[in-house]
Amino acid sequence: MADYQHILLAVDFSDEDTYVARKAERLATFFNAKLSVIHILDNIPMPDTAYGTEIPLYSDSPYELLEIEKNKLIHTANQLTIDPTNLWLIWGKPEIEIIRIANREDIDLIVVGSHGRHGLALLLGSTASSVLHHAQCDVLAVRLQDEWAESTIFAYS
Amino acid sequence: MADYQHILLAVDFSDEDTYVARKAERLATFFNAKLSVIHILDNIPMPDTAYGTEIPLYSDSPYELLEIEKNKLIHTANQLTIDPTNLWLIWGKPEIEIIRIANREDIDLIVVGSHGRHGLALLLGSTASSVLHHAQCDVLAVRLQDEWAESTIFAYS
Repeated sequence: MADYQHILLAVDFSDEDTYVARKAERLATFFNAKLSVIHILDNIPMPDTAYGTEIPLYSDSPYELLEIEKNKLIHTANQLTIDPTNLWLIWGKPEIEIIRIANREDIDLIVVGSHGRHGLALLLGSTASSVLHHAQCDVLAVRLQDEWAESTIFAYS
Repeated sequence: MADYQHILLAVDFSDEDTYVARKAERLATFFNAKLSVIHILDNIPMPDTAYGTEIPLYSDSPYELLEIEKNKLIHTANQLTIDPTNLWLIWGKPEIEIIRIANREDIDLIVVGSHGRHGLALLLGSTASSVLHHAQCDVLAVRLQDEWAESTIFAYS
């Protein structure tokens, strides 16, 4: 088989990100692949920036919510054991934007956490499932425990 | 992360099986994991055997269709570069039986081919998608080209 050359780790800033990231890192190390990280902003209003929906990470913006999300992504990247090739913070629908970037950047494996059909997935929609349906590349769905999803409910309530 | 210890390769006896198998083998080698292979019989009437829905591979049966399917699975196994720990030939619905065996056998990664939402998937139902929804473990969906799916139509017509 052609080994994976560019792996895209999709994070959602939940407690499970580290667990999913470890799997992506392990595969990137094994295949000597590039590792990039994407987070889709689907929980804040579209930021009124001059940059469109791809948010530049290393320039200040006047939007506090955006600054918080940028710092989260940078924090996530800093926790990786290998330097990510790209960090993308993009406003939009996760299943659409992840696929768009994957196609544009010649990603050959997307790694994404999956809650299965139970728990939060039914409420929030399943990103893993939508990505799987639309991806033109391989998708590794990393199974998360629904207990974690349920604890997220309490964390946000 | 805890490395994968037992990988389940789901095959459907299509032309793409080898492509999917190579990815499963590569991962099994890297993780030093056991590799097992499953094929679900969903295209023949339930065989009237004394064994239930799990078909024994190495005893003769009077059912010619079953013999053909058994030989296909053994042929697939012989093409692997590492010896599979288990071969399962099971009658039933793929998404149910794959999950049942995965749970019973402590599988931690299921590798399955995926046609995405286009092409044959809409006609045949998407095993990858159903497995993803129900699996209690990780799922690697190996993206197949829809051209292959279409060529399968001609091969069977």
